[in-house]
Amino acid sequence: MEFTVQQIADLLQGQVQGDGQATVNRLAKIEEGTPGALSFLSNPKYEHFLYTTGASAVIVGKTLELKQAVTTNLILVEDPYSAFSTLLEVYQQALASMREGVEEPCFLGENSSIGPNHYRGAFSYIGKNCRVGKNVHIYPNAYIGDNVTIGDNTVIYAGAKIYPETVIGSSCTIHAGAVVGSDGFGFAPQKDGSYKTIPQIGNVVLEDHVSIGANATIDCATMGSTIIRLGSKIDNLVQIAHNVEIGQHTVVAAQTGISGSAKIGNHCTIAGQVGIVGHISIADKTIVGAQSGVSKTIKETGTFIQGSPAFDYKQNLRAMSVFRKLPELQKQVDELREKR
Amino acid sequence: MEFTVQQIADLLQGQVQGDGQATVNRLAKIEEGTPGALSFLSNPKYEHFLYTTGASAVIVGKTLELKQAVTTNLILVEDPYSAFSTLLEVYQQALASMREGVEEPCFLGENSSIGPNHYRGAFSYIGKNCRVGKNVHIYPNAYIGDNVTIGDNTVIYAGAKIYPETVIGSSCTIHAGAVVGSDGFGFAPQKDGSYKTIPQIGNVVLEDHVSIGANATIDCATMGSTIIRLGSKIDNLVQIAHNVEIGQHTVVAAQTGISGSAKIGNHCTIAGQVGIVGHISIADKTIVGAQSGVSKTIKETGTFIQGSPAFDYKQNLRAMSVFRKLPELQKQVDELREKR
Amino acid sequence: MEFTVQQIADLLQGQVQGDGQATVNRLAKIEEGTPGALSFLSNPKYEHFLYTTGASAVIVGKTLELKQAVTTNLILVEDPYSAFSTLLEVYQQALASMREGVEEPCFLGENSSIGPNHYRGAFSYIGKNCRVGKNVHIYPNAYIGDNVTIGDNTVIYAGAKIYPETVIGSSCTIHAGAVVGSDGFGFAPQKDGSYKTIPQIGNVVLEDHVSIGANATIDCATMGSTIIRLGSKIDNLVQIAHNVEIGQHTVVAAQTGISGSAKIGNHCTIAGQVGIVGHISIADKTIVGAQSGVSKTIKETGTFIQGSPAFDYKQNLRAMSVFRKLPELQKQVDELREKR
Repeated sequence: MEFTVQQIADLLQGQVQGDGQATVNRLAKIEEGTPGALSFLSNPKYEHFLYTTGASAVIVGKTLELKQAVTTNLILVEDPYSAFSTLLEVYQQALASMREGVEEPCFLGENSSIGPNHYRGAFSYIGKNCRVGKNVHIYPNAYIGDNVTIGDNTVIYAGAKIYPETVIGSSCTIHAGAVVGSDGFGFAPQKDGSYKTIPQIGNVVLEDHVSIGANATIDCATMGSTIIRLGSKIDNLVQIAHNVEIGQHTVVAAQTGISGSAKIGNHCTIAGQVGIVGHISIADKTIVGAQSGVSKTIKETGTFIQGSPAFDYKQNLRAMSVFRKLPELQKQVDELREKR
Repeated sequence: MEFTVQQIADLLQGQVQGDGQATVNRLAKIEEGTPGALSFLSNPKYEHFLYTTGASAVIVGKTLELKQAVTTNLILVEDPYSAFSTLLEVYQQALASMREGVEEPCFLGENSSIGPNHYRGAFSYIGKNCRVGKNVHIYPNAYIGDNVTIGDNTVIYAGAKIYPETVIGSSCTIHAGAVVGSDGFGFAPQKDGSYKTIPQIGNVVLEDHVSIGANATIDCATMGSTIIRLGSKIDNLVQIAHNVEIGQHTVVAAQTGISGSAKIGNHCTIAGQVGIVGHISIADKTIVGAQSGVSKTIKETGTFIQGSPAFDYKQNLRAMSVFRKLPELQKQVDELREKR
Repeated sequence: MEFTVQQIADLLQGQVQGDGQATVNRLAKIEEGTPGALSFLSNPKYEHFLYTTGASAVIVGKTLELKQAVTTNLILVEDPYSAFSTLLEVYQQALASMREGVEEPCFLGENSSIGPNHYRGAFSYIGKNCRVGKNVHIYPNAYIGDNVTIGDNTVIYAGAKIYPETVIGSSCTIHAGAVVGSDGFGFAPQKDGSYKTIPQIGNVVLEDHVSIGANATIDCATMGSTIIRLGSKIDNLVQIAHNVEIGQHTVVAAQTGISGSAKIGNHCTIAGQVGIVGHISIADKTIVGAQSGVSKTIKETGTFIQGSPAFDYKQNLRAMSVFRKLPELQKQVDELREKR
């Protein structure tokens, strides 16, 4: 897709400084710009690249005062970052709308329906009695079990697996290899020391605008539902156990694990490789630092914790700074005891 | 499927109190019960829900003394939890038995056989020279390489990948996206600093009643076999490296990693996000707390360890409680030194 | 495949001691050898097995002095480990070369090309405009999106997912279930507390001889490329975020996570379950111990760090040894204060 600089400026409600008829056909970082590329400059730290970039055009703030001559063409806008972000979205929507239709062979079970403008890739599978909305993209090798509901504009990437009975909202993204609805890890210990599998008959509910990362796993509830609410974003390789509830607009970074029946609030930020034990609740706006282990309920909104087991972030920082000098502390105590 | 309350009571060898002709068609938690639902009450903490539940019937202990009138119908049994558990199993078996047959296209390599009453989903793949038992369910997009053996009643969920030469016992469950038999991480450092791949020619052996969680990875042995013994349960996203041996009836929770040639005993409980180094052995009935790092052989049966690196659980607890107050301890020592 | 002991000796430029016409048909550990097996003895610790092994032949060093009579046949070579390693490679190459051709149905998008001597498994998918080299093996249920480039001799195992625009070099191995090119975890917080998805338009570049483990996830760059350079080896379930750069011949063990825009040097060794924060750089030849959390740039080549947060390995070891005795240290301080 090729556009003139003027066309881009019009789309962004900006002004051209330079040649509006120059053409661009792709996006690039300003430091990596070559002819045909469109870049942007938001962070002043990168301003020096503006004078040397090979990009055909750069989006800049309209208040920017040039310190040297530029050879590239400028598009002046209110907020370059946000303008570029808009551009990225238009670009992705254009790409997405180009992908439509059905590649054969693919499988659609009896009594299942799918709305208009969809894409179903080769070797994708939709079981029986599914209800799939419009503008839904289902990539190759994705699996959707029986009785699944999927809202409009949702994208299921290659090889994602959605177990039967799952409910997925609108505008959700399920990345490649993610598993939604696998059995919870429930085994009843028997007298002889063996384990009996506890059948897991619940499901998973993802509300609208939820994103699930690549190869993440979301277990179904033993009974009832494992729920991820509106707008929450789950990163790659995260494990969410049976009957967990995650509130609205909460972010969970990569490789974190949340144990059974834990309840996470709204607007929380859970960093990477965190572990959260089962059956506790975490207040809204809680921040949990990376690699922490949360073992107790957090009641106060906006708490920031760190460590394994986790406690107050600042207190942990101070304890860690003494920890590094523990051999010295031990030596000081030894001296005091000798001289006593 | 709809049943009368009397039919359920007969199945559970219980007695009806109320209307035996009322009908139920699904299972639900007592606090979420609506007409048509069948629930159970085991934990006394939930007894108050019995008087308000909308469920059509509730399974209760026959010794329960009602504190108020109930509007729901009761099924009196010896042990409500175990009765409900039985019901769940019957329910799942009924669901499973409904899934039978072959969905096309699917792939069956030359000289492979599969027993009666099986399900093979669309886009599932079985390589050459495989021996698959009876009542086996292989879900869509699952891959089974050449020369694999699978016992009776085993379920391979959607998109699981079983490498060639793997041996899987009876009544095993391999959840979606799990990888069994991938190459061990073996690379020989060369003089120029590069790495040469060490071919991995061993396999994986899963004995009977083993469960492998979603997106877990079990590497094959360099030579010989990586082995998971009778009844052990491996949770989601667990990594088991080449030549590891896991004993009988051991449970490994989510996101734990076990390094090459480690040997884990019988009846162990390994919590989530644990790391175990290679070439050590862990005695029977060892319990390893969450996020621990096990760096040494555990010789004593029934040891409970915690921490990274892990040591005695109680000792770790006490050390952690001083850790939190380290800044204060440092201050106390500083004062003592000043006043000396 | 069956060979005489003499044929094996000729291949390894070794000498037979015993019956050169004896036949072998598989490889086995010396302690597990049974008739028909070929083993090797490199580590003197295992020498006693040489006198009792059931293997039909054993590769040994030509300087070995026998302490007892042997019943097996010997193949005398310069370096038994390296000879056996050569044998393993020949074995694997023979296996690989036997796998050739196309299993139907599989999908090849328009305007895509693939070189000679390839294998494409059933239900494998190659999108549009892909350029795939020669001797490439693509296993069943693997997915390769549009505009992907793959070099010669690369193997893509079952169910691996390669997103559009990815560039993969020669002699790479992508294990089952790995995801290469998924969206980076980029979300811009909005004033109402919700998150807006930042489109990710970059890609992933894997240079030659790179290995990606089973179910590992490599995110694409927001813009530009996430890069893994020549000869680096990534283990199972590793997470590599957007815009990360990993140098040459670096090894990253299982379940490690590397956050956005971190830059790892050449010849580094990152152990298992490590976390590395975003936007830092790690010098060449750095060693990071298992379960560590790296929060700061490492400038000095050859640094060895441990802990969460990580600092000097030896210093951490000493601090940990005091940590275990913290309750005792506290008691000592309490006593000093009382007696003051």
